[in-house]
Amino acid sequence: MPDVVDLIRAKRDGERLHQGDIRWLIDAYTADAVADEQMSALLMAIYFRGLDPAELRAWTRAMISSGERLELSGLAVPTVDKHSTGGVGDKVSLILAPLVASCGAAVPQLSGRGLGHTGGTLDKLESIPGWRASLSNADIIRLLAGIGCVICAAGAGLAPADRRLYALRDVTATVESIPLIASSIMSKKIAEGTGSLVLDVKVGTGAFMQDLASARELADTMVQLGDAHGVQTRALLTRMDTPLGRAVGNAVEVAESVATLRGEGPADLVELTLALATEMLALAGIDADPAAALADGRALERYLAMITAQGGDPAAELPSAEHIEVVRAEISGWLRVLDARAVGVAAWRLGAGRARKEDPVSHSAGVICMAKPGDQVTAGEPVLELRSDDPARFGRAIEALTGAIKIAPEPFEPPPLIIDVIG
Amino acid sequence: MPDVVDLIRAKRDGERLHQGDIRWLIDAYTADAVADEQMSALLMAIYFRGLDPAELRAWTRAMISSGERLELSGLAVPTVDKHSTGGVGDKVSLILAPLVASCGAAVPQLSGRGLGHTGGTLDKLESIPGWRASLSNADIIRLLAGIGCVICAAGAGLAPADRRLYALRDVTATVESIPLIASSIMSKKIAEGTGSLVLDVKVGTGAFMQDLASARELADTMVQLGDAHGVQTRALLTRMDTPLGRAVGNAVEVAESVATLRGEGPADLVELTLALATEMLALAGIDADPAAALADGRALERYLAMITAQGGDPAAELPSAEHIEVVRAEISGWLRVLDARAVGVAAWRLGAGRARKEDPVSHSAGVICMAKPGDQVTAGEPVLELRSDDPARFGRAIEALTGAIKIAPEPFEPPPLIIDVIG
Repeated sequence: MPDVVDLIRAKRDGERLHQGDIRWLIDAYTADAVADEQMSALLMAIYFRGLDPAELRAWTRAMISSGERLELSGLAVPTVDKHSTGGVGDKVSLILAPLVASCGAAVPQLSGRGLGHTGGTLDKLESIPGWRASLSNADIIRLLAGIGCVICAAGAGLAPADRRLYALRDVTATVESIPLIASSIMSKKIAEGTGSLVLDVKVGTGAFMQDLASARELADTMVQLGDAHGVQTRALLTRMDTPLGRAVGNAVEVAESVATLRGEGPADLVELTLALATEMLALAGIDADPAAALADGRALERYLAMITAQGGDPAAELPSAEHIEVVRAEISGWLRVLDARAVGVAAWRLGAGRARKEDPVSHSAGVICMAKPGDQVTAGEPVLELRSDDPARFGRAIEALTGAIKIAPEPFEPPPLIIDVIG
Repeated sequence: MPDVVDLIRAKRDGERLHQGDIRWLIDAYTADAVADEQMSALLMAIYFRGLDPAELRAWTRAMISSGERLELSGLAVPTVDKHSTGGVGDKVSLILAPLVASCGAAVPQLSGRGLGHTGGTLDKLESIPGWRASLSNADIIRLLAGIGCVICAAGAGLAPADRRLYALRDVTATVESIPLIASSIMSKKIAEGTGSLVLDVKVGTGAFMQDLASARELADTMVQLGDAHGVQTRALLTRMDTPLGRAVGNAVEVAESVATLRGEGPADLVELTLALATEMLALAGIDADPAAALADGRALERYLAMITAQGGDPAAELPSAEHIEVVRAEISGWLRVLDARAVGVAAWRLGAGRARKEDPVSHSAGVICMAKPGDQVTAGEPVLELRSDDPARFGRAIEALTGAIKIAPEPFEPPPLIIDVIG
């Protein structure tokens, strides 16, 4: 049996851990034979020393093996999923899952909740009266077979070691490590049983990765990990300097998703959704035009079926906020910056997000971007609409927006949304 | 109130922690408001990023403040103590404390137990029938006033934060960090209340520090810390490539200490003891000749009084081992290497040391060096005598000695024992 202190010391000193030792570490941690304080010291050593590709494969494999793996190979159609590293106003999953399903693939979108300034897909969908995030494995397979898509909570049985490790990293400042991020994301997606996977790796002020080099490294690492575990993986590197679409919050993002499924979506959201759908269908080996499926209402039909199957009432009115506060353009010109992180933090402070994972979220709170970078604005015109049921929250939300809006005297063309495709 | 995750992240990213934050961290850890897994992540970040002098002073001060501080200023004579970073055969304290006391200073030698291949002063003294390591603070002061020296266990009230941190570092591979070592040693010595302090920082195979640069950095760091807290501090850098003296173990080291106090000590042990005594008396401002005090029996007299005052019977026979195994010179020549670590590990495996802190030690087990580096030896002549009550232990002890003895055909002069004086 390896000695855990020797293994921590080896990683600390820059040595490579053997695959068997990594497997033992994760298993022993899951079985409480390695203590939290030992694992956190190891995680900090990994933060500084990294994991090489062989170590990372072993680490990820051990996390997958810590739990069950969904068996989706019995489905009649190929499975393909998408994962986003998180951004402000990123409601793509709500549109993409039914869209790709309507083109003939099955999309097992197992999701999480939001923490901090980026929202969670499940929090958004829970603003629909009656909708349930928790499904049994049998329900998931039934929905995939019948409707072709499902968006639900990842069950506790999938990669339980990751669940514990993530909670530990959160309180020990060891979240920001590329191999640890990559193994956390990929272990859950591989355990979920998808045949192929498209990653939306975001870079910019509103993203987890603030610089292109780190985002590219994370994307490369995840693509290699997916391929090594038999899941065909491709990554889009996309810009997250300004919110995606116009709505940031929960109910407001659901409403914008439905509008997009009705053909009335904002240009950037439509562009990114179609780009991701195109990659997903290519990996699934399906020759279909997602733009047509969006235009002719097939995607909307799948969405309505999916929501209904999970107890939601798509016809019910969504919660709306009682109070609105408007942030106006101070000068006339062209909107050059509408900072994603600042808008995300504002929405969070309005109640749309949570500070601790046990906190509730407000479904009605959020921010609407009335103008987007590149738009011409006139002094006094609304740029942001802040919504909350609690007017006491506006002060600190507006504080978060200090310096977030920049208007320039000359026209401005925003840079392309999609930076690169990897894999 | 600071956020502990922010503080870990700041240290991880190479930022400097504020003194108030450091104080808060140590206090909150002692009060269980900072969890072990958070502290161990911080310790690993400190391993990589270090602590600058201001951070280290604050860290050490917070550890001192976590407990009580002995008040020795009521004594009529100056107080001075010695700390060794640990070596094989290092029984200097047993001779030095009564020697310096007999010259007119008071020596409050609060000590620890051995772990691993270096022995502990308390374990050695406990081989004397009746001797007790635990004394109350009142007893300590009474002995210092009456006899001028005491060697006893550091009470649980001194720097309790260090006690917890040390136990945590031990299981998380964060022991080997110069600022953490320095603050651990110095917080206890400063809390002990000594007016001045001489450090014996050992370097070599049998020492904690294997290279001169690290040993010098540790010595510099501790001297600065002592001076910053009003304890005049000086450090000797000394060689620890071969055991100090001839005896390695518990009862065998007590016997060698008594022989030295009778004027029959091995040259290296006498040299180092007198050098340390000279520095201690200089710091205490006492003009006395320790060589004379050793030669005329004054030091021995203090030793006998000290042992008796702590319940020991200096006339009682010391435990002796039932079985002896001899390691002989394979060729004739001059002994060039007698490796300290290997001899220390051999003594440990014979039963003189402990693997876990709750293990008992054998008082009779040990190794006697029949030859020392520089001595001429003839093939077949004994080099080491191994002693144990359990003959089954000889095999693994001899295994530890593989390659530890090197005999060369030409004469060899060992390098000077004392490398440098710092402070």
